[in-house]
Parts: sequence; structure tokens; C-alpha cells
Amino acid sequence: MPGLINTHSHVPMSIFRETVDGYNLQDWLQKKIWPMEDKLTEEDIYYASYLSFIEMIETGCTTINDMYFMTDSIIKAAIDTGIRLQTTRTQIGQNDEEQQEKLNDLKELIEKYNGMYENITFNMGIHGLYTVNINYVRKCIEFAKEHGINVHMHFCENTKEVEDIKSMYNKLPIEVIEQEFESDHILLAHCVKLDNEDIKKMAKIGNVSVAHCPVSNLKLGCGVANISEMMKQGINITLGTDGQGSGSSLDMFEGMKYAALLQKGINEDATLLPAYEILKMATINGAKALKLDNEIGTIEVGKKADIIILNLDNVITKPINNVFAEIVYNVKGNNVETTIVNGKILMENRKLLINDKEIESKCEDIINRIK
Amino acid sequence: MPGLINTHSHVPMSIFRETVDGYNLQDWLQKKIWPMEDKLTEEDIYYASYLSFIEMIETGCTTINDMYFMTDSIIKAAIDTGIRLQTTRTQIGQNDEEQQEKLNDLKELIEKYNGMYENITFNMGIHGLYTVNINYVRKCIEFAKEHGINVHMHFCENTKEVEDIKSMYNKLPIEVIEQEFESDHILLAHCVKLDNEDIKKMAKIGNVSVAHCPVSNLKLGCGVANISEMMKQGINITLGTDGQGSGSSLDMFEGMKYAALLQKGINEDATLLPAYEILKMATINGAKALKLDNEIGTIEVGKKADIIILNLDNVITKPINNVFAEIVYNVKGNNVETTIVNGKILMENRKLLINDKEIESKCEDIINRIK
Repeated sequence: MPGLINTHSHVPMSIFRETVDGYNLQDWLQKKIWPMEDKLTEEDIYYASYLSFIEMIETGCTTINDMYFMTDSIIKAAIDTGIRLQTTRTQIGQNDEEQQEKLNDLKELIEKYNGMYENITFNMGIHGLYTVNINYVRKCIEFAKEHGINVHMHFCENTKEVEDIKSMYNKLPIEVIEQEFESDHILLAHCVKLDNEDIKKMAKIGNVSVAHCPVSNLKLGCGVANISEMMKQGINITLGTDGQGSGSSLDMFEGMKYAALLQKGINEDATLLPAYEILKMATINGAKALKLDNEIGTIEVGKKADIIILNLDNVITKPINNVFAEIVYNVKGNNVETTIVNGKILMENRKLLINDKEIESKCEDIINRIK
Repeated sequence: MPGLINTHSHVPMSIFRETVDGYNLQDWLQKKIWPMEDKLTEEDIYYASYLSFIEMIETGCTTINDMYFMTDSIIKAAIDTGIRLQTTRTQIGQNDEEQQEKLNDLKELIEKYNGMYENITFNMGIHGLYTVNINYVRKCIEFAKEHGINVHMHFCENTKEVEDIKSMYNKLPIEVIEQEFESDHILLAHCVKLDNEDIKKMAKIGNVSVAHCPVSNLKLGCGVANISEMMKQGINITLGTDGQGSGSSLDMFEGMKYAALLQKGINEDATLLPAYEILKMATINGAKALKLDNEIGTIEVGKKADIIILNLDNVITKPINNVFAEIVYNVKGNNVETTIVNGKILMENRKLLINDKEIESKCEDIINRIK
């Protein structure tokens, strides 16, 4: 089948796996994550990203959309592992000087890597409406238009974020999107706290995609995004894992199962989200959201060979009564046998064909040093 | 760690894996499952149970609580695989003659196997208040008291069941339990549709355990049981997978993760259900519910050796920042390396030490014949 496409993550957060148990979002960021992130070096970011890319290869994910900083090191790890990466230099910060510096960073990255590696693309990553001001938002949108790139932003992840945006902008969050964003592709991550009226407005904007991150949203006590309603309104739903700090892993098979089961359970309707729809979310819908659907997301003549081979010869998938449902409900990331990106075999019969020497121990050293 | 204890399942339903996608509970039973079950033979039940027991061994579950029929064949498969089984002959049916026959079946089973195999125990399995009448309920309770065994029953799985019970008994379902059940151990499976008042009443009864089946409850469009509130009220919460027809698999590691994440997400409180509490649910709490806590549920001198060994040397668990959280959130059933039941090694380094020849193909033949 086509390789899976993870549309929302923070690649170097592998080292923060399971540091969150028992923290709500804001507490976790302020008390745990930000103090540790302040101590990260470029080398740390390289190894932590490398660990995530190994995890992707071992769980059948061939493309990831990243939002972090020290992006150059993330890109180097992507090139060294052979994974397909869309990335950015996250825009966040309060004063003009800081903002200009971050926009310049992104410009430099885009110019540096311009067309050099076909696996590496960029978007405009805005941290969130609550962590930037209106002038900065406008500069980011202008930048995205100039460079012809998507906008990727956290949006309505929990109740506190919505309250913060309302008091900063004197508007509903979705109204800020309606009025300010003209980019032809916007990818909004999370979208947990949207009601049916918000969703209708979102659908009318056109070309908005949602990165649904069900595991992370549950783990941080945010809630469950109403993706059934978004789908009814024609919005392009894609799947993300978020960083391992909140999402535990980059296993997109797990994400598919959570996405399907939550909508059936919460809406008390088992007929919602058939398995084939879920497979589209994790493949071609993700490709559309990253403006890469001409290249990836399906196995077709003329597209890149981003392909995975699954092992269904397993007690947990037997007997096979419905192959799509088996993939969504019973295949685990570690049932992926072979992972191919851009025609290059990165894992074959569960054996990694890239260098993975000392990556795990380097990452253990990093977290032990900074925690 | 101690082997996991699955407190609610229908062991032979392995063959119905992924027959449910897109069906709500009642439709699925009436249109899909019951017509197929009518065609099952004793031999079918043996092989289908054997497949489930292989799945348990391969995913680190050492004890299962079963509710089905043709129980003799299920017991034979348990003996041949070495798994620990608590089982029953399910009580269901409308007329006196049928009821007496099923009670006699259970009596015969108990007498036949009385003390013969220390891995095999029995309880009184009542299908549900909506599928038996008040006289039958009373006979079952009387039987349980006479034989000193637990009662195990489906309870408030979805809204339709609650409505049916209310119109049959002219009472709330929990009031039927309060008034009729005097057994010193009652294990109620599902308990999705209970409000806070119901839960308070349930807590007052004493010695009621709940078999929480989060994956099955989502998949059948039933909802999410409020186990946080039940825990606050002191009710013993255990974990079940339900049969694979609705629950997809018997993987208790997956069940632990769903149990934790759902409460955090739905209640919008990430501090709920720390990982260690979840591990207790899947081990010692389950042992208490089956009245086997003197024998299993922890690793202690004097208890049976029901032990599993996990492989944490895996990219998906690295780096290890919190070992309990790693087990709940990142270990998959297939990361279990070795499974030991009652001192006997059933799988070692992922190699099954029991006969598994042709079990999968036999099961494929069965489902192809009856569907």
C-alpha cells in the first residue's frame, strides 16, 4: 500500500516520550518541556530527529510534516535517513526583532535547500494565533503567498487556547481565519474545540485541511475533534500523531484506529467512518494537505515510489474477513515489513538498511543531560 | 510483570474478527452474528477457541473470563494450550424448559471438571437482564450461591439495552441489581450507560466489579463508560477486550491505553488514571473480580507463576523516561517475549511452545463455511 503520511508532528520530540503522564497541556509545556528545550543543541536535534525517522520507517510512515526549530539539523537527519519531510522554522514570539529573525531563518532555509533534495519541502509554520500577534500573522501569510507555500498552524487544541484567542482578537478563532488567511492551502492541526457553526464557516473558506491528532488530544486532556461533522461538510481530514511527548509514538496505524473508533463511540453510531475512508485520511488526504498529491499518497504510474509492505500473516489478523478493516484495526506499526521512500528501500523484512548505530543511546544521553 | 487478566470475552469469536465494520450492536448481532453462530459445531468451537488462546499467549494475557456456549470444547482448547480460563454456560432464553436445560448444563460442567484442572474455574454467566426474565434471574442467583461462584453479566452496554430493561422490569437497571442480586461477587461487563446516581448506588452494593471494554464499546457505537467516577466511588475496575467480533483483538496492552486515554480526553483532565492504576486494572483488579486474587494478579511468594516478560528494547519505547507509562502507552501485545502460565512456559522469545499447526487455516475454513 502507499506509505502513510503524518501531517502534524514535532520531529525532535522523540526524546520527550512519556514525560507527560499526569500533566495538562499548559502545565506540561511550561513546567516540563520548555525548560528542557532551552538546553537543546543542534547536535541534539539531529539525533532526536534521527530517532523519530527510524520510528517512522519501522512503522510504515514515509512522509512527515514537522513544526519545530533548529530546522537545519532536522533536514540533515531526514537526508541521512532518506525519509520524506515537509518542514518549517516555526514562527512564534512577541517582539518585532525576534519575528523578523525567524522569518529570515525560514527564508534562508528555503533558499539554501531550493530544489536540492526532492524529499524536502517547506511550509509556513505558525505556532498558533495565541502565540503570535495580528501583525506577525499578516507577515507570515504574506511570506507564504510570496513563496507559494502552505500555512501550517496549531488551531483550537483546547478550551484555554480558544479563550486566549477570543480575548486577544475579540473574535472567534475561526473568524480570524476567515478574515486574515488568503493562502490557497491552510493546514490546521487539532481543531478540537470547534462547534458545528465553526465547522460550517471553516468549510466555506475552501482549501482548509485538518490534521486530526486523536491520541495526543486525548492524552493532554483536550478532547475529541468532531471530524465526522467536518467530513460531512467536505473538509479534507488528514492524520497526525503530534510529537511523542504528547502523542507517545509516531505509529500512524494506531492513529487510524483511534480516529475511526472515537467517532463511532462518541457519536454512538458504528456506521460512521468506514475503514476505507480512514485509509484515505492517512494517505491521499495527507498528500493533498501538503500539496504533494501529484507525487505521493497513492500508488500510481508517474508518482514517487513511497510504498510499504505489510505482514498480515499474524494470529491477530486471522481469519481475514475484511482486508481494509484488518489494516485499520489490527495491523500494528511493527507489522510493516518493508518501507520504500522515493524508490529507495529503507527497511526490508524488518531489517533497517540505514545506519542506526548508537542513535538510541545518544538520545538517552540527551534526555538524561537536560531533564 | 504479572500476566494480564482479561475479564470479559467470548473466546470462540476469533473467527468473527472484522465482520462488524459499519454495524450498530443490535443489527450486527441479528443480521450477522446469530445466523452464523447457529451453524457452529463443537469442533468449530474448539478451533476458534484455540486461535484465541494463541492470540492471548502471543499478547501476554494469561487469564481470560469467557461467556459463550458449547463450553466443553472451549475448556478442552484451554487445557490443550495451557491458558488459565474462567468460564460458564451462558444463561439466556425465554421458556422454563430451555432455562432448566442451561442450568443443568452448567451444573454438569462444574461437576465434570470439579478440581480436575487448577487452571479452569467457573462462574454463573447471565447473558443480560434484557434477555432473561425475573424468575430466571432468581434461579441463576440461587445457583451461584449454592455453588459459591461469581455472577458475570452484560450490563448497560448501550441506550437500547437500558430502555429494554426499564420496560421489562419497571425499574432502572441498577435498581434490579440492588434488589435481586445478593451474590458476594458480581462482575458487570460494559456499564457504559450509567449516570453518577447509578454509580453511587452501584458502589453501595459492595463487591461489584466492572469489566471495562473500551475498544468494543467504541466500535459498536455504544459510548464510553465513566470509569473515573466509578473509581472515585471505590468500585473495582477491571479490563476486558470483549470478543474479537466487536473488540477486534484480545490485545490487553491496547485495552490499557484506550482505558487511560479515553478518561483523560473525555473528561478533559490529563491527570486522571496514571499509568500504574491502569496496570492494576489489567492485573490484580481482574484477579479480585474473578475471586482469584489469592492465586494470581501479582508476582508474590505463594501465588501461581503467571508471568510475562516484555521486550522494551525497541525504538518505540526509547528513551525510557517512565517505565509504567511505557508499558501502558507504547508496549504492544507483540512486544511480549515470553509467557508463562502456572509455571509452564507457553511462549519463549516469541516462539510458541504449544502446537499451533493448522489452527489458522482450520479457522479460515470455518468462517468461509458459515458466512
